[in-house]
Amino acid sequence: MQPVPAAMPPERLLLGPGPSPVHPRVLEAQGRGTVGHLDPFAFEVAEQIAGMLRTVFRTRNPLTHAVSGTGSAAMETAVLNLVEPGDTVVVGVNGVFGGRIADMAGRAGADVVVLEERWGRAIPPERVESAVRAHPEAKLVALVHGESSTGVQQPLEEVGALLRDTDTLFAVDVVASLGGVPVEVDAWGIDAAYGCTQACLSVPPGLGPITFSPKAEAAMAARRTTVRSWYLDLAGVRRWWGSERAHHHAVPVNALLGLHEGLRLVLEEGLETRWARHAEVGRLFQEHVQDRDAVLLADAAHRLPHLTALAWPETIDATKLRHRLLEAHGIEVGDGLGEHAGRAWRVGFMGEGARHDLVDRLLDAVDELLEG
Amino acid sequence: MQPVPAAMPPERLLLGPGPSPVHPRVLEAQGRGTVGHLDPFAFEVAEQIAGMLRTVFRTRNPLTHAVSGTGSAAMETAVLNLVEPGDTVVVGVNGVFGGRIADMAGRAGADVVVLEERWGRAIPPERVESAVRAHPEAKLVALVHGESSTGVQQPLEEVGALLRDTDTLFAVDVVASLGGVPVEVDAWGIDAAYGCTQACLSVPPGLGPITFSPKAEAAMAARRTTVRSWYLDLAGVRRWWGSERAHHHAVPVNALLGLHEGLRLVLEEGLETRWARHAEVGRLFQEHVQDRDAVLLADAAHRLPHLTALAWPETIDATKLRHRLLEAHGIEVGDGLGEHAGRAWRVGFMGEGARHDLVDRLLDAVDELLEG
Repeated sequence: MQPVPAAMPPERLLLGPGPSPVHPRVLEAQGRGTVGHLDPFAFEVAEQIAGMLRTVFRTRNPLTHAVSGTGSAAMETAVLNLVEPGDTVVVGVNGVFGGRIADMAGRAGADVVVLEERWGRAIPPERVESAVRAHPEAKLVALVHGESSTGVQQPLEEVGALLRDTDTLFAVDVVASLGGVPVEVDAWGIDAAYGCTQACLSVPPGLGPITFSPKAEAAMAARRTTVRSWYLDLAGVRRWWGSERAHHHAVPVNALLGLHEGLRLVLEEGLETRWARHAEVGRLFQEHVQDRDAVLLADAAHRLPHLTALAWPETIDATKLRHRLLEAHGIEVGDGLGEHAGRAWRVGFMGEGARHDLVDRLLDAVDELLEG
Repeated sequence: MQPVPAAMPPERLLLGPGPSPVHPRVLEAQGRGTVGHLDPFAFEVAEQIAGMLRTVFRTRNPLTHAVSGTGSAAMETAVLNLVEPGDTVVVGVNGVFGGRIADMAGRAGADVVVLEERWGRAIPPERVESAVRAHPEAKLVALVHGESSTGVQQPLEEVGALLRDTDTLFAVDVVASLGGVPVEVDAWGIDAAYGCTQACLSVPPGLGPITFSPKAEAAMAARRTTVRSWYLDLAGVRRWWGSERAHHHAVPVNALLGLHEGLRLVLEEGLETRWARHAEVGRLFQEHVQDRDAVLLADAAHRLPHLTALAWPETIDATKLRHRLLEAHGIEVGDGLGEHAGRAWRVGFMGEGARHDLVDRLLDAVDELLEG
């Protein structure tokens, strides 16, 4: 074959649903060098990552680590390890990611009860309550905290309180929310939460932070069947992350170095400060983009601040505008998903991208393109 | 929590079963910046990676890419996508990795026929032939090309020829061999092969190169059941890697940049030159380590050159010597696996580590420690 030239990434300002802009310190850290995953140094890094993730998840859960795959691999880790064939699983579906959980639960052999809700609305906690009353045998209720297909922020506290003293587990997808808006795993009674690295943590994609409560651990210990994946089976994975320090798979050490530095940046800033920054910058964008006649897809009462799905007026070709934004200004925003594909945008001010001046930069570019 | 200091990896010479030493160009490439996985640039990089992987796998298979997980995730991708519940799968087991395939096939719902062989020996092709005669319904035969628990190199050509005109598929684990010794996917009639990045390709762990023949693709198209994992289901994964260029999961773009540069280095050197280098350096080490009374675990007729499992004489504490090697000389070698744990070493001269001077460096360090 012809020699392939070096891959030189173009300058991009990442304002889509992820990846978000990565801090130079993170890129530097993941290039510091490669060590073996059984090196004492690697275990030290792992322990520190687990500790920092506990702070970010607001939990004391011992079983807290990063899956060697993206947020979707972490989602499937939660589903496959908590669910056995024949179990009932209740899933709230008001966008793509709830649908993905339901899909995975089906592959795990579960009887899936879907609570469907119109895209753009949260799942009413009362609906979860009736579903659990109708299915007292339910092993798991799963909800998406930040549904990035619409920008909806799902309320979680009532459902957590409802399930706390039952045998039903509560799993929450925090892929779009972790590090950007409050996530309180212990206080809200969440038994399994998983995120990604490339949203509000501003680390390149490739790892999936995850945490399980002691109640979830007990359910796993009581399994009658083997988990349907070897790679994602926590019985094996935790041999490396836990005190045994044994080989399971070749853990991606360089990616872990990047996550380690990214988490250090999060904690240097402080979680509450970071949440406030995301709220402020996101609300500013939402205000100003509505001044330009964009319609936000999420109900006003349940809106993520930092990740916004919006529809432009019919007179504007949303896809063409998005492509021109990338080509002429190097700014990436996301396409709409599902019924909104080609008609909406998904705009994220996440992690290093949650800055006032970037709101201006995006809106100035949009104005220029719309006038041009 | 207390502030966590930056993670500064110690200087290590990686001469274990992986990871191998990473070229500075690869570390630099993966830190060049992050772009969105739906950016036209990302698809260009993906296409070039697929092309270079075809060269390395010696195949024209259209379905060739890198799994967003380690070599074990690629192994499970092969198993889960080729096997349906109730299928018969014949697996050669002469070490840990054949055992892992059998484990995964069981989780996929297969009836697993294990061809067990003493560790250190290859699976005799005649045994595969009788197994396939006894199980003409077999959907898949799986063998490990480089069994890194023992250093055995499995002959593949006869089995490939045997299965070529049957309905049975042939899957091969090339995790320890890809890029280091000849792997001829098309010429040997292999229907699925998967490797890793951190062995002879000298790229940090985190991605799993994989390729499937048209015969394997036809078998996937004829499936009656859904693949048991969403994350590893090729029907979804190939939407991103193929011509559709659609979102599936957030592909780890920075890791892909590293793999891209690593593959460029492999092709700059030339595959045949690289194989010759691994053969020469590995044989040199095997010769000299036997002069020091180490016993190689693999039969002389079926030995990988570049990855060697060896037992020290009983008078030597293999574990202590290994720890001292890391502490005093910064050199990593691997522990034995299974029955050899604590008693043997696994030593790899792989990728950037397959150099004459590193053989000397290791042996000098060992001599010093043994004399000291």
